[in-house]
Amino acid sequence: MKRLFSIDPWKIVETTVNKEDFRLAESMMSLGNGHMGMRGNFEETYTGDFHRGSYIAGVWFPDKTRVGWWKNGYPHYFGKVINSINYIGIRVAIDGEEMDCYENQVTSYYRELDMQHGVLTRRFTINQNGKETDVEVVRFLSISHPELAVIKYQVTPKNYSGNVTFTPYLDGDVRNEDSNYDEDFWLEVERGVSHSNGHLVMKTKDNPFGTPTFHVAASMRLVVEGEILSHSTAEREEYVENTISVQALENTPVSLIKYVAVTTDRDYEVAQLITKAEEVLTHSDELGYDSLLQEHKEAWLKRWSIADVEINGDDEAQQGIRFNLFQLFSTYYGEDARLNIGPKGFTGEKYGGATYWDTEAYALPLYLSTANPEVARNLLVYRHNQLDGAYHNAQQQGLNGALYPMVTFNGIESHNEWEITFEEIHRNGAIAYAIYNYVNYTGDKDYWNEYGIDVLTGISRFWADRVHYNKKKNVYMMHGVTGPNEYENNVNNNWYTNTIARWTLRYTLEVIDALKASGHETRVSDLQITEDEMAKWQEIIDKMYLPYDEELDVFIQHDTFLDKDLKTVDELAPEDRPLNQKWSWDKILRSCFIKQADVLQGLYFLNHEYTYEEKERNFNFYEPMTVHESSLSPSVHAILGAELGKEEKAYEMYHRTARLDLDNYNNDTEDGLHITSMTGAWLAIVQGFAGMRTAHETLSFAPFVPKSWSSYSFKIVYRNHLLTIHVSKDGVTIAQEGPELFMKLYGEELVLPENGTTTVTLKK
Amino acid sequence: MKRLFSIDPWKIVETTVNKEDFRLAESMMSLGNGHMGMRGNFEETYTGDFHRGSYIAGVWFPDKTRVGWWKNGYPHYFGKVINSINYIGIRVAIDGEEMDCYENQVTSYYRELDMQHGVLTRRFTINQNGKETDVEVVRFLSISHPELAVIKYQVTPKNYSGNVTFTPYLDGDVRNEDSNYDEDFWLEVERGVSHSNGHLVMKTKDNPFGTPTFHVAASMRLVVEGEILSHSTAEREEYVENTISVQALENTPVSLIKYVAVTTDRDYEVAQLITKAEEVLTHSDELGYDSLLQEHKEAWLKRWSIADVEINGDDEAQQGIRFNLFQLFSTYYGEDARLNIGPKGFTGEKYGGATYWDTEAYALPLYLSTANPEVARNLLVYRHNQLDGAYHNAQQQGLNGALYPMVTFNGIESHNEWEITFEEIHRNGAIAYAIYNYVNYTGDKDYWNEYGIDVLTGISRFWADRVHYNKKKNVYMMHGVTGPNEYENNVNNNWYTNTIARWTLRYTLEVIDALKASGHETRVSDLQITEDEMAKWQEIIDKMYLPYDEELDVFIQHDTFLDKDLKTVDELAPEDRPLNQKWSWDKILRSCFIKQADVLQGLYFLNHEYTYEEKERNFNFYEPMTVHESSLSPSVHAILGAELGKEEKAYEMYHRTARLDLDNYNNDTEDGLHITSMTGAWLAIVQGFAGMRTAHETLSFAPFVPKSWSSYSFKIVYRNHLLTIHVSKDGVTIAQEGPELFMKLYGEELVLPENGTTTVTLKK
Repeated sequence: MKRLFSIDPWKIVETTVNKEDFRLAESMMSLGNGHMGMRGNFEETYTGDFHRGSYIAGVWFPDKTRVGWWKNGYPHYFGKVINSINYIGIRVAIDGEEMDCYENQVTSYYRELDMQHGVLTRRFTINQNGKETDVEVVRFLSISHPELAVIKYQVTPKNYSGNVTFTPYLDGDVRNEDSNYDEDFWLEVERGVSHSNGHLVMKTKDNPFGTPTFHVAASMRLVVEGEILSHSTAEREEYVENTISVQALENTPVSLIKYVAVTTDRDYEVAQLITKAEEVLTHSDELGYDSLLQEHKEAWLKRWSIADVEINGDDEAQQGIRFNLFQLFSTYYGEDARLNIGPKGFTGEKYGGATYWDTEAYALPLYLSTANPEVARNLLVYRHNQLDGAYHNAQQQGLNGALYPMVTFNGIESHNEWEITFEEIHRNGAIAYAIYNYVNYTGDKDYWNEYGIDVLTGISRFWADRVHYNKKKNVYMMHGVTGPNEYENNVNNNWYTNTIARWTLRYTLEVIDALKASGHETRVSDLQITEDEMAKWQEIIDKMYLPYDEELDVFIQHDTFLDKDLKTVDELAPEDRPLNQKWSWDKILRSCFIKQADVLQGLYFLNHEYTYEEKERNFNFYEPMTVHESSLSPSVHAILGAELGKEEKAYEMYHRTARLDLDNYNNDTEDGLHITSMTGAWLAIVQGFAGMRTAHETLSFAPFVPKSWSSYSFKIVYRNHLLTIHVSKDGVTIAQEGPELFMKLYGEELVLPENGTTTVTLKK
Repeated sequence: MKRLFSIDPWKIVETTVNKEDFRLAESMMSLGNGHMGMRGNFEETYTGDFHRGSYIAGVWFPDKTRVGWWKNGYPHYFGKVINSINYIGIRVAIDGEEMDCYENQVTSYYRELDMQHGVLTRRFTINQNGKETDVEVVRFLSISHPELAVIKYQVTPKNYSGNVTFTPYLDGDVRNEDSNYDEDFWLEVERGVSHSNGHLVMKTKDNPFGTPTFHVAASMRLVVEGEILSHSTAEREEYVENTISVQALENTPVSLIKYVAVTTDRDYEVAQLITKAEEVLTHSDELGYDSLLQEHKEAWLKRWSIADVEINGDDEAQQGIRFNLFQLFSTYYGEDARLNIGPKGFTGEKYGGATYWDTEAYALPLYLSTANPEVARNLLVYRHNQLDGAYHNAQQQGLNGALYPMVTFNGIESHNEWEITFEEIHRNGAIAYAIYNYVNYTGDKDYWNEYGIDVLTGISRFWADRVHYNKKKNVYMMHGVTGPNEYENNVNNNWYTNTIARWTLRYTLEVIDALKASGHETRVSDLQITEDEMAKWQEIIDKMYLPYDEELDVFIQHDTFLDKDLKTVDELAPEDRPLNQKWSWDKILRSCFIKQADVLQGLYFLNHEYTYEEKERNFNFYEPMTVHESSLSPSVHAILGAELGKEEKAYEMYHRTARLDLDNYNNDTEDGLHITSMTGAWLAIVQGFAGMRTAHETLSFAPFVPKSWSSYSFKIVYRNHLLTIHVSKDGVTIAQEGPELFMKLYGEELVLPENGTTTVTLKK
């Protein structure tokens, strides 16, 4: 654990240039607006170690697979969100000497990420050979105008008068640090530069895999506040710049405003990219810096007004949940169904930046509750759009139906480890579960007819082919899978996978019944779902083998799990942890230790199908063996722990997930933030501490307040209601905007009046 | 299956330039003499597709591991025998026009590999713009002078008189086709050239893994038969050449003899490399071409005199066994305990050219019987030399004892797929078994004391730590292994692995007893083998869990094998085969199909510990599920099939292993020959058809003659006897050189008289 930033409910504040942990600080200071984003790189030159990273949503490259030993069925490329044009760059020189916070003396330093308003501000005093200069840099990526980035770079001489030279530039000569073959993915298409303007159009290189190229244009417009002494331009392959020299008097600020518009051929014809970018810049110029900033801040406040979680009495926890929500919304706010949520968002390159099952399993519930229903719906439509790819993946394995990929941009699997690609197929269940979750939460049953049934049918057909019948035991089995616990692989009859497969088949049959009952028979027959096929599915449901131990009365993670040398995490020596850094892969696989919720993941998803006692026995059996070395693990344990009255365990798990990056728990935040697991803190509060459940289309809560908190409140959107739930040691107050709502609190029925408030005293 | 070569008992003959299958023909025409070897590359320029390959025993490079996703414990490099100086090259021009069998018209072509004498000869007529030229090229790598290569290149103008220009050269600018990062592994150290002489010294680049560099020197001496018109030399970085123009009259041959000596710092100080090479050349010059050739041929005849297998009535089979023996002896003849037998020998680069368990499991028995005992002993000493590396490998996995590597040059594991590196640990048992096999065959019990006990103790300590105790079932288990059947992995309680592990522990205890009984107690105590440790080993022996099914009465390949969808190979559609090219890796792993003998491998090794009925039941259960997609598979099935009276199956398996490369069964011989599996044909004849067994230090046979053969005979060295066994439809004749020998034939005792012959009529 490493904490570089002070505790503040709304801000991430850094008061020194953390040269040793510069990359970690860069990850934390990332900005994004759904369309684009970047790490907390400095605008001016920094000669220390750093990781330049600037990414554009949906712009990716198929990086040729690198493996030792090619196995049949391997994906040919790993899709990567790629580092693109560096458009924030502004070199700054004082009387010809370049400013550099690594080499020059920085006498005061303050950087804040204002999460409430989505603004990154840096103020510092720099001393270059006795010349002291105050600098303030404000940067934001507009969420009102997603193609627009704005930087205001202000310089004030403190003890001299002299020349300040600004050299704002656009640089297309960028590479990914994680390129498999150290390849440059970009080619220049066009560049142009003139006084106060410049543009660069880049395209991704052709590739042999048949995936489309992308064009990206960045246009800059420069506004100087101060007396210009000289102004020149320069350019070279993949690069344009302006150089503007300004007279700066002692104690009088001069500044450069750099507006940048970034457009791509995902949205426009290639020929229009510059024109469209220029339109954005012209409009920005008209509005002006102050209005743009104001508009942006208000848009962020509006997001918070329906999504904020307030915690009283624990600012660490408060900062954690807001940081997570801020970074999630910076990555994705549901405007574009072609996009999804990458594991590092716009904050790094690890894991390729593509779509994982994390979205359905962990992100969807948050977006369902904290944004308008269209956002969550778009996450589902994304998968529907990629159904062809899922059919392709199954075919690659010689199987029927649709197998959604572990990692993808276009529906086609691009992960290159067979134990993930081929075996971790439980992900397919999460895609089906998300449809249930969405429809059950929103009541939008039209979704089944419009999109859902196609996806459910594809997935069910996959499961029906992937199981095999064991004559001797008269059961259906599923061999050779990797469950959510990636610290095992190639196991047989993973309880979670078999359970979610069986559940998918059952849910698909239910949806078919519902479609038929609502006059959509042709939808079913168009998919050529026959009575025979449904009978086969029913047979699999009835005869699916689910490992269970009578003596322990728990579900068994997979066939031979109980044959392992069973130990608990507290028997591990501290020097053995984290296992993934200390043990050989082989030893990890053989051990009983669990990376993340596996059986418990099933009890979380299908919470309403299991008794309290079942959950308790399984939690008590598996939790002590779980090392939580996946960032996705603690939240599920927090939620189940809370339900089972294990309040301390639940709080411990909350803290771990909420401050994972803030406190660098996994010692890898320098690579980027754990975006998709950032929903964990919210889930732990809302589904854990507040006990929110929505099964059977009924909203219910059973809140408690963690010991160290005095109270907390949060808002959720539920159908046509906006609820504010306030939980204190004394009781629960629920206020709502919307019509009368029937719900449950602590298992008892409750009617929330239209646009009214209800207070219930907490049971002690 | 693809057959380019005509059937001949002693030769591989090609009568056309196989431009489409040039690499396949190159593999087949490989030469080697233990010290060095090469593919059947042409001396002169060939502009079609080919694979230049010239390798030197024990000269390797650690090629940085290439994987997608690094896992803890991975080896950092993959060791590779590397393509080294191309020393055979001779460019030839007729009146200035370069000769090229790809571009020029070749009107007659004949190439033969004479296996009896180890000589490669090529004769062809080439037509260049109407000028017809006869060419004869003879090449051999002397087995009397292993550092010497000799080429005689003779040219005869048929319908003209003109100038023939020979340009013999040495070229150090070579690369491996399979380099992980397309890297050049070599640097020039020194070069020199003068009339009729030239030399090149190359060294392997420094590497970051701490393995030693190698220096290789090649020196050439040139002798021209004909009237020299001009003679010049040239050189550049990593390259030297002579250019010699010779007057050639119509129908009068002119020739160039190129002697090359190749020395390495494995044998000499770097400073001496050239001197030592020059000594070889001077000596060769003195002897002259004809004597060198004669000496070399005689040395090969001598090898055949104790190793040949004669088959009457089946020239295909005859050619197969001789080709296998020839290529094996070309690769390794036991002169150097620092060397071993690479899977491709000197014929290609695939699999890195390092040592695999193939040596102990498949090659040792052949060398035990067909060469003097020192050869087999050196194969064992090789492993003793690498014991430190084996301890290192175990430590990498967090385990005690010694784990011999899957792939290595120096004892340290260099394979980079975890399911092989970490899991295919049964190889450790084969290393122990080889000690038993050697001592049991030769009677050399001193070996235990001198070397064996160190290796056995290390391996036993590994097994004792690698098993885990299952309290509930009161057994020892071994989880997470890959058995010999690589079409499964990460299985629990692989019967073969558990069996060979238990056997190792038992044999180690027996050897300890024997050492104590023979006055070598201190050898045991020096190894700190305590009573407690031995008691622990005994407990594991007693409680080792070995999967067995009562109903089927067969050993079970691993815990959940019987839960699979069990099918037989004849249920597979032809288009599904070979599975490794047609099915996804995932589908292969889940299927019941077996790549190579697994349970049956155990019944082969520990043949004397199982009843006929046990072998029969298990053979009948597993053989129908075996696809033999490993080149190591058919021989074991041939041997067991023969023992069980399944003569047709045995013959089918023999044919497949004997002509694997000759008929390109696996469609991959272009990459090189399957050297280590070449023992399979010999094993199938001697241990299969002739039923040779040596358990309990008793030699026995139970021969039959395959239907399509009239008779066969072979020789074996057994202790101080040289036996010639002749088997015909009528009976068995055994002649021997050596003292009286007690042995068994068809289970009945037989005494072979001193230097005498015994004939037994075959039971019909």
